Amino acid sequence: MERIIDLSQTIEENMPVYPGDLRTELFQTHYLGVHGYNSYRLQTNSHAGTHLDSPMHLLTSREFIGELPLQSFIGEGCVLDVRGQPVIKTVAEYEARIKEGSAVLLYTGHDRFYGMPEYYRDHPVVDPEFARFLLGKKIKMLGVDLPSPDKYPFPVHKLLLGNKIFILENLTNLGRLLDVPSFDLIAFPLKIKADSSLVRAAARIHCRK
Amino acid sequence: MERIIDLSQTIEENMPVYPGDLRTELFQTHYLGVHGYNSYRLQTNSHAGTHLDSPMHLLTSREFIGELPLQSFIGEGCVLDVRGQPVIKTVAEYEARIKEGSAVLLYTGHDRFYGMPEYYRDHPVVDPEFARFLLGKKIKMLGVDLPSPDKYPFPVHKLLLGNKIFILENLTNLGRLLDVPSFDLIAFPLKIKADSSLVRAAARIHCRK
Repeated sequence: MERIIDLSQTIEENMPVYPGDLRTELFQTHYLGVHGYNSYRLQTNSHAGTHLDSPMHLLTSREFIGELPLQSFIGEGCVLDVRGQPVIKTVAEYEARIKEGSAVLLYTGHDRFYGMPEYYRDHPVVDPEFARFLLGKKIKMLGVDLPSPDKYPFPVHKLLLGNKIFILENLTNLGRLLDVPSFDLIAFPLKIKADSSLVRAAARIHCRK
Repeated sequence: MERIIDLSQTIEENMPVYPGDLRTELFQTHYLGVHGYNSYRLQTNSHAGTHLDSPMHLLTSREFIGELPLQSFIGEGCVLDVRGQPVIKTVAEYEARIKEGSAVLLYTGHDRFYGMPEYYRDHPVVDPEFARFLLGKKIKMLGVDLPSPDKYPFPVHKLLLGNKIFILENLTNLGRLLDVPSFDLIAFPLKIKADSSLVRAAARIHCRK
């Protein structure tokens, strides 16, 4: 037996977007009673809701996110409780806790402000020194329950993406993973010719007997 | 060690869509050299490319696909070689081969016509009797390398969706699974308030030592 924990925010009409981004539109185009089927249309930028950034977002790269190997977006996860830290720094115990090739998730609890102006205005950031530590660990992905792990001029984005470490933003429910001994993170991007992609991010927990 | 096989078609500007559907648009809105970052905008109906149909597509239901439990969209997969059959019928060996709760994939090879008019015009269909057999097996999903497992008035869609068996359409690469002893299918829909969803479908193969 296993459990799946959903780590994704909802995609809907007028969902929150990063300040300055075009709004996300989601509307019904066909109705069962009129057309014989229901259908919807989604019009969104590649950074709305729970999404993955790839190097092309901020660096010179012609490799679309949908062309990257799927192995990069699935693997053993590790959640770190970093609540209460305006600047998230590395601590000694991470050396043992974070395994090479894992997906590291930072649980800040800031997702409680999702949908409010504070969510984008006053969010915690990752110390670039911590980002450099993660480069050394050759992690696959860094996931956060934040709109971004940094602010302009985005030093953490550039460090991670420059080393092909993908960034998973606007996660939620990370607190539910704190007591989980081991899980796989699954966050496949769409097979899309774009810099970044909306994703359904989830933790797959293998229950021990 | 494990391998991942991608089963998805590419999402791009002017990709093929079901006849009569609105076209999919994908265009760059922001450029690194001008805006400091690259970003794209996707405008698509919920049935373009590789996607999952949920009951709301053809039946009276108010449950959006993004609200359904993720456990429904991951699990042991089973690929059946049904090439050369204009009407895909059940055969005796399926009784033993198809396990309850699995995701059944039908390899027709018809995806070689993807992007051509023949793809939508002359595709194989699933015999409703076979669909009834799959209901009895309580499978999770039926996946096809076709635009649809049936044609108007969509008897197979209605049988499967009416029993909460999801339909995965426009798959590709299914032939690569024929020699694989066992795999998990992963096809998470976006967490979207819509009837159906674009997905990245993949097979996760656990290599035996």
